[in-house]
Amino acid sequence: MARADGRQDDALRDVRITRGYQQWPAGSVLVEFGRTRVLCAASVQEGVPRWRAGSGLGWVTAEYAMLPSATHTRSSRESVKGRVGGRTHEISRLVGRALRACLDMSAIGENTIAIDCDVIQADGGTRTAAITGAYVALADAITWLGAAKRLADPKPLSCAVAAVSVGVVDGRVRLDLPYEEDSRAEVDMNVVASDTGTLIEVQGTGEGATFTRSTMDTMLDYAIAGCARLTEIQAEALALPYPGELPGAAK
Amino acid sequence: MARADGRQDDALRDVRITRGYQQWPAGSVLVEFGRTRVLCAASVQEGVPRWRAGSGLGWVTAEYAMLPSATHTRSSRESVKGRVGGRTHEISRLVGRALRACLDMSAIGENTIAIDCDVIQADGGTRTAAITGAYVALADAITWLGAAKRLADPKPLSCAVAAVSVGVVDGRVRLDLPYEEDSRAEVDMNVVASDTGTLIEVQGTGEGATFTRSTMDTMLDYAIAGCARLTEIQAEALALPYPGELPGAAK
Amino acid sequence: MARADGRQDDALRDVRITRGYQQWPAGSVLVEFGRTRVLCAASVQEGVPRWRAGSGLGWVTAEYAMLPSATHTRSSRESVKGRVGGRTHEISRLVGRALRACLDMSAIGENTIAIDCDVIQADGGTRTAAITGAYVALADAITWLGAAKRLADPKPLSCAVAAVSVGVVDGRVRLDLPYEEDSRAEVDMNVVASDTGTLIEVQGTGEGATFTRSTMDTMLDYAIAGCARLTEIQAEALALPYPGELPGAAK
Amino acid sequence: MARADGRQDDALRDVRITRGYQQWPAGSVLVEFGRTRVLCAASVQEGVPRWRAGSGLGWVTAEYAMLPSATHTRSSRESVKGRVGGRTHEISRLVGRALRACLDMSAIGENTIAIDCDVIQADGGTRTAAITGAYVALADAITWLGAAKRLADPKPLSCAVAAVSVGVVDGRVRLDLPYEEDSRAEVDMNVVASDTGTLIEVQGTGEGATFTRSTMDTMLDYAIAGCARLTEIQAEALALPYPGELPGAAK
Amino acid sequence: MARADGRQDDALRDVRITRGYQQWPAGSVLVEFGRTRVLCAASVQEGVPRWRAGSGLGWVTAEYAMLPSATHTRSSRESVKGRVGGRTHEISRLVGRALRACLDMSAIGENTIAIDCDVIQADGGTRTAAITGAYVALADAITWLGAAKRLADPKPLSCAVAAVSVGVVDGRVRLDLPYEEDSRAEVDMNVVASDTGTLIEVQGTGEGATFTRSTMDTMLDYAIAGCARLTEIQAEALALPYPGELPGAAK
Amino acid sequence: MARADGRQDDALRDVRITRGYQQWPAGSVLVEFGRTRVLCAASVQEGVPRWRAGSGLGWVTAEYAMLPSATHTRSSRESVKGRVGGRTHEISRLVGRALRACLDMSAIGENTIAIDCDVIQADGGTRTAAITGAYVALADAITWLGAAKRLADPKPLSCAVAAVSVGVVDGRVRLDLPYEEDSRAEVDMNVVASDTGTLIEVQGTGEGATFTRSTMDTMLDYAIAGCARLTEIQAEALALPYPGELPGAAK
Repeated sequence: MARADGRQDDALRDVRITRGYQQWPAGSVLVEFGRTRVLCAASVQEGVPRWRAGSGLGWVTAEYAMLPSATHTRSSRESVKGRVGGRTHEISRLVGRALRACLDMSAIGENTIAIDCDVIQADGGTRTAAITGAYVALADAITWLGAAKRLADPKPLSCAVAAVSVGVVDGRVRLDLPYEEDSRAEVDMNVVASDTGTLIEVQGTGEGATFTRSTMDTMLDYAIAGCARLTEIQAEALALPYPGELPGAAK
Repeated sequence: MARADGRQDDALRDVRITRGYQQWPAGSVLVEFGRTRVLCAASVQEGVPRWRAGSGLGWVTAEYAMLPSATHTRSSRESVKGRVGGRTHEISRLVGRALRACLDMSAIGENTIAIDCDVIQADGGTRTAAITGAYVALADAITWLGAAKRLADPKPLSCAVAAVSVGVVDGRVRLDLPYEEDSRAEVDMNVVASDTGTLIEVQGTGEGATFTRSTMDTMLDYAIAGCARLTEIQAEALALPYPGELPGAAK
Repeated sequence: MARADGRQDDALRDVRITRGYQQWPAGSVLVEFGRTRVLCAASVQEGVPRWRAGSGLGWVTAEYAMLPSATHTRSSRESVKGRVGGRTHEISRLVGRALRACLDMSAIGENTIAIDCDVIQADGGTRTAAITGAYVALADAITWLGAAKRLADPKPLSCAVAAVSVGVVDGRVRLDLPYEEDSRAEVDMNVVASDTGTLIEVQGTGEGATFTRSTMDTMLDYAIAGCARLTEIQAEALALPYPGELPGAAK
Repeated sequence: MARADGRQDDALRDVRITRGYQQWPAGSVLVEFGRTRVLCAASVQEGVPRWRAGSGLGWVTAEYAMLPSATHTRSSRESVKGRVGGRTHEISRLVGRALRACLDMSAIGENTIAIDCDVIQADGGTRTAAITGAYVALADAITWLGAAKRLADPKPLSCAVAAVSVGVVDGRVRLDLPYEEDSRAEVDMNVVASDTGTLIEVQGTGEGATFTRSTMDTMLDYAIAGCARLTEIQAEALALPYPGELPGAAK
Repeated sequence: MARADGRQDDALRDVRITRGYQQWPAGSVLVEFGRTRVLCAASVQEGVPRWRAGSGLGWVTAEYAMLPSATHTRSSRESVKGRVGGRTHEISRLVGRALRACLDMSAIGENTIAIDCDVIQADGGTRTAAITGAYVALADAITWLGAAKRLADPKPLSCAVAAVSVGVVDGRVRLDLPYEEDSRAEVDMNVVASDTGTLIEVQGTGEGATFTRSTMDTMLDYAIAGCARLTEIQAEALALPYPGELPGAAK
Repeated sequence: MARADGRQDDALRDVRITRGYQQWPAGSVLVEFGRTRVLCAASVQEGVPRWRAGSGLGWVTAEYAMLPSATHTRSSRESVKGRVGGRTHEISRLVGRALRACLDMSAIGENTIAIDCDVIQADGGTRTAAITGAYVALADAITWLGAAKRLADPKPLSCAVAAVSVGVVDGRVRLDLPYEEDSRAEVDMNVVASDTGTLIEVQGTGEGATFTRSTMDTMLDYAIAGCARLTEIQAEALALPYPGELPGAAK
C-alpha cells in the first residue's frame, strides 16, 4: 500500500517558502506543501480592537479563505453568499490562536497584525500550510515593526510555529495528507507545534470511525517530527534578508 | 492548590441527566455538569439534505446555541446580530461529527435527526455537556424511530458517545473545568470518546502557552477515564423506560 | 362543546411562576401557563442606547425567541436563517412596550434592563406568558438594583403588568387558549393589563373572519378578569424572599 | 383644546383616493389622509407560495415601506441597512391579514395578489391609510382577474375593509391623528373594520400610560364610525370605471 | 423603421419637472421622461461621513431604488431580499458622482446632502431621468441652505447637470430609449453632461454586439444635444420660486 | 511632466500573461500590467442558471474580488463584512458583459463558464487587466470544452476581447494608469475593445471635473490603440499549447 506519490508514511511533501510575494504588506509569503499553495500576508495596522484598547497590548487576527478556483471543482464565493461558512470560521480562529501563542503582545504595543491566508490552490493540508507560512509572514512583519522603531522589546517572538496534518489512511498512519488521501482518511489530525517541540494545538477527528489511544500516540510522534522539519525550512527561509524595503532604510 | 469546589483533579462535577424534559421532540434531555445546564433535543424529520437525497442514508445535524441569559454577563443574541459566530459554528460542527460517529446512517433510512443543544446556564464545559446529553437524546430518538417502524436495523447505534473537558490550571492537569478554572487555564482540551474507550475527537489548545507531550498524555488519561464514568451515567439514565408516548403505543 | 382540558370558558390554565431559575441574571423566572413554559430573564446593564444617552433616564428592552425544539414540529433557528422573523419582532416589541408602561425610567438612572423571553415549550399563549413572567423578573431586577444602591426612587414600578389571551373558538369566547384551540380560533386577542384593571395593550384579530362589537366586549371582560387573577399569582410569587444573593449582602 | 387643524375630535382629515396611479399593476391607488400619502399597488402573480401550492387556494401578501424622503427628517433605507425593521414587519403583516379577511381564497384560484404600500409622505396614520387604499387596489385587481377570466367566483370579496387610527391626546379621544398629535398621544389605537361595521383588527397601546375600559369603549365608537365614513369614500372611488385597459378589452 | 411613438431619432420624450412634490425634504422633484417617473429628493443633514469629518468639506450621497410596482412585472423588494443588487449599487454610485461634479464641497461646509431617487414608474431611462431630476432637487436644497445661512459661498453650483440615454435600435442611433426600445437595443449608452456641453460621465455598452468608433461619435452627438435641451427644461423649472417655505422666511 | 516610470503617454506598462497558473480550472491565467497582478480562472460547470434552463444556450458569469492584502493599506474582506460592495458588483458585472460579447452562447450548449478574477496585487487598472486576462482563460476553457466534445460549433469565440484604462493626469491624456496616477486623475476611462477595433464598452468619468468632447476623442484614440497591442500579447500567449492535460488526451 504505497502512497500515490511514493513518499514514506512519515515524510512531508516538498515544501517551499517564498518571502516577499506581494509588494505592500509588511510580510507576504507564498507557502507550498506539494500542490497546495497558500498566500500568507501580515499587515500592520495601528490600534487594536475596541475591547483591547488602552491595555498597552497588541493583537493578532487571522482570516483564512479559499479562492473559488482553488479547488477541484469550483467552490462558491463566501462574499457572494453573504456569510462566512463554519469551516472558514474554524480555520481562521485556529490560525489566529496558533500565532498568538508565539508572540509577546506587550512588545508590539497597541498595534494589530492582520494575517490573511488565501488559498491559491488546494490539495489537502491548507490550514497547516497556512499556519506554517503565516509564521514566516509574521516574522517579517515583526522585522518591519522593529525597523519602524515600534517594538518595545526587540525579540517579541517567543518561539517559532509550524503545523502539519497526519491521519490514518488505508489503515496506516501517514503524514501531510494530500487531498486524495485526506478525502478518504479514517482519522484526520492537525498538530501545531513550537520549535522546541512543545504542542500548541492538537485537533484529531475520527471521520465516521473511532481510533485507539495507541494510534493517537503514533500520530503525535509523526506530527511532532514533521513540525520539527518544517521549523528547519522556515529557518532557512528566514535566514535570507528581508525581501523588501524597510522603513527608515536609506533609499 | 485545592480546587474551589474541593474536587480531586481527576474528578467530574455532579452530573445529572433528565430525560423527557420537553413534550414534543422524540428525545429531550436536560444535562447538568455542576451548574452548567444544557437542553439537548433530538427531532426526527423526514428526508435528508439535498446533497444526500437518493442515497438511502440518513443524516444527523446539530445546532448549538447559548441563551443570552446563560452567561455571567448577558451575551448578545445571534439572531439579532444576524449571523452565527465562529465559536457557535465550531461547536455545532463538533457536536454533529461526534454523534455521527456512533450511528449507522443506512439503518435510519432517509430521515434526518436534528439535534438542538441550547445552553440554559453556562459554567464551563458546555460543549462537552452538550455532546454527552445529546447522545442520550439521540438514543431516545432512535427508540422512537424503532417504535414507528422506521429503522432498517434495530440497533443502529454502534457505540455510546460522551465528552469531557480537561486542562492545565495552576500548573496541574484537571478534569471537567468550571468557568472559574476554564477562564484562566493554560491549556484547554476537549475529548470525545466511545464507550469502548476509543477516541472520536481530541481538541487541545494552549491558551497563550505551549504544552509538552507528557502533559498531553496525562490529559488524555484523565479525559478517557472521565468519559468512561460519563458513559455509566448515560447508561443509568437510559435504563429507565422511554419518558413519553411512543408511536404505535396502546393509549 | 366543552374544552379539551375541561376548563370553564373564562378559566385560566394552571399557572406556575418559579423565581431564581438561573444563576446569573438579576431576575430569572420560569413561567408556566399549562404546558407553555417560558424562561424570562432580566439582566441589568450599565448605560442606555446611544439615542437616550445623557437623558438621565433608563431603558427596558426585550427580546422574545422560541427554541427550535419548543414547537410540535421543530422550527428553524433564526440565528441560522440570519434574520429575525416578523412574528418574533412583533412580540419582542410588544413585551418591551408592556414592561415600559409600568416603570419610572428616571428612577433607574442610565441603566438598561434587558429582558429575554425564551420559549422552552410552546402550547399557545407564549407571548402573554412571557409578559406575565417578565414582569416578575423585572421586579427582581429592581430589587437587585435597589440593593446595589442604584435606584433614585425606591419604588420605581408604578403598577404590576400581566397578560392573557382570549379568543373565539367553536363560536364561544374562551380565555387562555392552548395551541389546540388557538390554531382554530376565529378571533384571537391578547390583552395586557395593570393590577388596577386599566389596559396597557389590546391586540385583537379576526382570523379569516370578522367579529362584532359585542364579542369584543365579552372578550375584554374575560381578559381583564384573567389578568386580575394573574396579578394575584404574581404577587404570591413575589411575596417570597429574593431567590439569590443580593449585592451588598453579608456573605 | 381645539385641534391644530380645527377638526372635531371625531372627524377624519380630508381623504382622497386616486385610482390608476401607475401604469402596470392591476390595481394602483394613491390614498391621501390629509398630508399622509401612500401608494398602494396590487399586482397579480401566477402561483402561490410553496407551502400553499396544490391547495387550489390563492394568496394575498403585503409589503409596507417608507420612502426615506417621506418623513420629517430623512429615515435610512432598509435595503441599505440589509434588514427590514420590526415596525415595517409588523405593519406589513397587519395589512396582509386585514385584506385576507375580505377575500375568498378559493375564488381566485392559485394566484397571488401582491400588495405594495409605499409611503410617499408621512404625517401620521400611514398604516391605516395603507389598508384603506390597498382595499381599493385589491378590488381593481379582482376586476382585472375577472376580465382575464381567472376567477372561479365572480364576487370573491366578502366585505370592504377600511382602517383608521384613534387615540387620546390632551386627555381627549380623537380620530385620525396627524403626526403632531400621534407623537404625543397617551394612547394610540388602530382599528380595521368591515363595511358591515364588524371588526377585523383592533390594536390599542398605552404609550407610557394605561387607559380605562371606558376610554377603550369611546375609542371603538369613534373608530367604527370613522371606518364607516371611509367605506363610503372607497365606494365612491370604486363607482368610477376601471382606470386602465382590462385584459380581453377590444382595443 | 419609425419609432413606436412617432418621435424623430434624435428627439427626447416629453419631459416634465415638478418641484415641491413632497413636504419635508429641502428639495423634492418629480421628473417624468414620457412614462418614466422618478421622485428625486434632496435632504440636508448636518455632518459628513466619518472619513470626511474635520475636512471642512461637505458631501453628496445618492441612493437609487425602484418601487416593486414600478415595473411591467412586479420586481422583488431589496429590503426584503436583505441586499442591494448590483444594478442598484451601480446606479446609486453613478448619480452621486454626477452630482458631486457640479458642487463646490467647501461652500456647503460639513453638511451632507442625501439624494434619494425612487422610481415610481419605469419605462426606460430611469437612471438618466434620476440624474436630471436630482440636479433640480439639489439646486433647491442649495437654495434652502442659503436661506438658512449655511453656505460659505452663495453660488456653490459650478454647472448644471443633465443626463440622457442613447442607443442603437433596429440599426439606427436613437435618443432617450423607452423600455420597448431599450430591451432590444444592440448598443446602450448613458451620457451625463454639464450645461456648457462638457462631459461628466459616458457609459456605453454593446449588448451582445460591438460597435464602431463612428457609431460612438454619432451617439455622443445625439446625447450632447439631448442634454442641452434637458438643461433648458431644468432652467425653466428653476425659474419659478422655491416651492415651499424657506428657513428664516417671514410667516 | 514625464511619467514616474518614464513611459510615453500612450504606452502600456509591461504586460505578462501566464497560462496554466492553477491546476484545476479549465483556464487559469495570471495577468500582470506592471505591478498589477490578477489571477483569472475559467471553470466549466454543467447547466445554466434557472432563468436560462431549457434554452439550449450557455452562459458566462464573472466575479471580481480583491485580496485584502492586495492594496497599499489592507482592505477589509467582503465575506467578513457579509456583503459585496458596490465597486465589486460593478466590476463583476462589467467583466461578465465584456466576455459575453465575444462568445456564441448556442455553441457551448447548456454549460456555464464561471470566470473568477482575484486581484493578487493592485496598482491601478485591475478591472482592465482582469478582462484582458479573463479572455485568455476563457479561450483555454473553450479549448477544454472542445477536447471534451461539448461544443456544438468548434469556433464559438467571435472576437478577442481586451481592455485598458486611459485618463487625464496633470492635464495630459495618458494610457494604462498605475495607482499613483489613477488616484489623482481628473478623468478616468475604461475601454473594452475587440480585436477588430470595434468597441464593447466605454466608461468614462470626470472625477470632480468635466471633460471636453475633444479630450474624449483623444482618450478613445489612445485606448483603441492600447487594446490592439494587448490583443497581440494575448495572441502570442495563446499561440503556445494548452498548458495542462485536456480531456480525452492519451496519458
